[in-house]
Amino acid sequence: MAADTAVSAAEHAQHLLLGLFLIFAAAKVMAEVFERLRQPAVIGEILAGVLIGPYVLGWVEPSEITHTLSEIGVILLLFSVGLETKPASIIKVGKTATIVAVLGVVLPFAAGWGLMELYGATNIEGMFVGTAMVATSVGITARVLGGMGMLGATSSRIILGAAVIDDILGLLVLAVVASMAAGSTDFVKIGTTAGLSLGFVAVVALLLAPMLTRHVPRLGAGVRISHAAFAASIVLCLGLAAAASYIGVAAIIGAFLAGMAIAEVSEDNHELHSQIRGVTEFMVPFFLVGIGMQLNLTIFNDMNVVWMAVWVTLIAVVTKVVGCGLGAWSLGLRGAAQVGVGMVPRGEVGIVVAQIGLGMGVISESLFGVVLFMAIATTLIAPPFLRPLFARTGAAD
Amino acid sequence: MAADTAVSAAEHAQHLLLGLFLIFAAAKVMAEVFERLRQPAVIGEILAGVLIGPYVLGWVEPSEITHTLSEIGVILLLFSVGLETKPASIIKVGKTATIVAVLGVVLPFAAGWGLMELYGATNIEGMFVGTAMVATSVGITARVLGGMGMLGATSSRIILGAAVIDDILGLLVLAVVASMAAGSTDFVKIGTTAGLSLGFVAVVALLLAPMLTRHVPRLGAGVRISHAAFAASIVLCLGLAAAASYIGVAAIIGAFLAGMAIAEVSEDNHELHSQIRGVTEFMVPFFLVGIGMQLNLTIFNDMNVVWMAVWVTLIAVVTKVVGCGLGAWSLGLRGAAQVGVGMVPRGEVGIVVAQIGLGMGVISESLFGVVLFMAIATTLIAPPFLRPLFARTGAAD
Repeated sequence: MAADTAVSAAEHAQHLLLGLFLIFAAAKVMAEVFERLRQPAVIGEILAGVLIGPYVLGWVEPSEITHTLSEIGVILLLFSVGLETKPASIIKVGKTATIVAVLGVVLPFAAGWGLMELYGATNIEGMFVGTAMVATSVGITARVLGGMGMLGATSSRIILGAAVIDDILGLLVLAVVASMAAGSTDFVKIGTTAGLSLGFVAVVALLLAPMLTRHVPRLGAGVRISHAAFAASIVLCLGLAAAASYIGVAAIIGAFLAGMAIAEVSEDNHELHSQIRGVTEFMVPFFLVGIGMQLNLTIFNDMNVVWMAVWVTLIAVVTKVVGCGLGAWSLGLRGAAQVGVGMVPRGEVGIVVAQIGLGMGVISESLFGVVLFMAIATTLIAPPFLRPLFARTGAAD
Repeated sequence: MAADTAVSAAEHAQHLLLGLFLIFAAAKVMAEVFERLRQPAVIGEILAGVLIGPYVLGWVEPSEITHTLSEIGVILLLFSVGLETKPASIIKVGKTATIVAVLGVVLPFAAGWGLMELYGATNIEGMFVGTAMVATSVGITARVLGGMGMLGATSSRIILGAAVIDDILGLLVLAVVASMAAGSTDFVKIGTTAGLSLGFVAVVALLLAPMLTRHVPRLGAGVRISHAAFAASIVLCLGLAAAASYIGVAAIIGAFLAGMAIAEVSEDNHELHSQIRGVTEFMVPFFLVGIGMQLNLTIFNDMNVVWMAVWVTLIAVVTKVVGCGLGAWSLGLRGAAQVGVGMVPRGEVGIVVAQIGLGMGVISESLFGVVLFMAIATTLIAPPFLRPLFARTGAAD
């Protein structure tokens, strides 16, 4: 036992570092391969996760550590997306974004539930699959659009705004479905969560952001520590992410709003933007690879599961494109298509819903796999369509 | 059970984010307080850890997560220190650094062991305390000197070089002592570790670094992904850190050498330096707070433990100052004092040795506390002396 502890401490460090190296290096190698194939680098990084994950090569096992790094990654990603999003520009598209979000929630939820009914699933199973199809994971879309320098386009701003709104709606639906699955229907609690969520977004977007803009001439001014603007930004990011998760909103929404709140104050601070880009570039591969690592390929030996996955994915894509496209019809056909396709990726939010359903024992292992497939497939499908859709227009802010 | 899982998943995210926020925010608030008191910010960040840790306020419990973030933090810190260190400048001071390192290992080890013998401890206990007093934790010193812009001074380069060498020597001593404590004396294995460590450092410092300088005109050239230089830097950092830990050298040495290897190639890449500074500034507080969180204040209710801690710390300081100062005598009195004081902090290396000893059951809980106290106290003692010592000279490269 004596020597074992010393050995296992050293082995723990080795294991951790090898894992970090494999995740980061695999992500970047696959990103480079995909760039050379003229495909989005994000797809490469997610497929790197599938490849090195437990179901193909088994080089890296998902663990609490990889999960945590993935969570920090998505938070910093949404923070840096928020940093490119001025509140005024979201408010300007607020009405369209709201319509896009609502239609993009109602259609997938209803269609997903209906499809499961056709498969003979229970109501709770149907509602869980429907819920997993609701929330757009704006991270992937933002990464693609950011890479193209298109985050300022009107349709990009509608996508970001609608994604914030539909995340909130999606989490409300999840709260309702989860408490129904648990046999309770505490409408007071659900109503409180709803009120708090809306209040949180309103307070940050409408009060905190303008207040910062008005009263803080330069971020970190008057603070003596080095890199004060960066420290202040990270404190705000982690603080609002934590606050959001306590209120019952997704943490990524808090991070996004934090970025948005300091967007105007930090606009001409190139050093700050470079530093935030550094930490984002370091952490985001852990998020993307983390998604890929969760895809269990063996459940697809059963052809019924394969077909169900294909149908769920198809419905997930069509309902978002149609629902959100209709909501953005005022932009014209190309704008509506940009918004519709941009809202397709479900990513980690769908995965979280599936994990909760599996954990509660209300959906089966293969239904879990199907939802996971849908979440990843929608993430993989969108970017190749997004690029040409946005490349041809140049509609900047 | 059903609702519990959903709740606990959400609680897990809340808990994680609150912890991240508290660690980062406490570090920066305390850093600011210490800057205003004209004390080094690092002390503030370590004391933030003591404060929010389990033994004072109990706001954050050390966990696998905080431990991992702390480990990533120290790796990135040493990487960014390496980035400021050109191999040629280390080689130039190689002879002095070697003498400094050897004297700074022999004296603390012998004196620590001897002191324990006076206390009536066993040989193994004595050797463990001696070993914990051997390895300088260059992170703290580098942070202070870096903050003053003094990393290029001759004595700074001797400190960095000697710290690399004494880390290797310290880990060799640990390997010997740990295997003796475990009852084995496998000299072939110990010899192999020694050979591999020296080989690793020689290969990276003498072959890889000059090769990169000669054959890579611009880091990331020819790679298509965005921020390629940053990605390449991180891959090299994590790769060499992992390789070092597998060879049996400390991971931080691999990270330091990785930074050194690309120091010349990346010299005029301001964007890369800003990005690396961003990820370093984000992760390092987790390292500093992590050290502070491990200090259990309650063991010091026993005055015998307090006096032992004071004596061990005193011996630890005096032997490093005298040993390393003698080694650097050629620099004159002030240079010798700079090197001697700069080598005082033990930090995480001493803590790791203490943890291994406790884990092997060969040192007691209070002796563990004493070593921990010494590791933290030496870390706190050095910076206030370093500042005036370096502020008066301007001896740059």
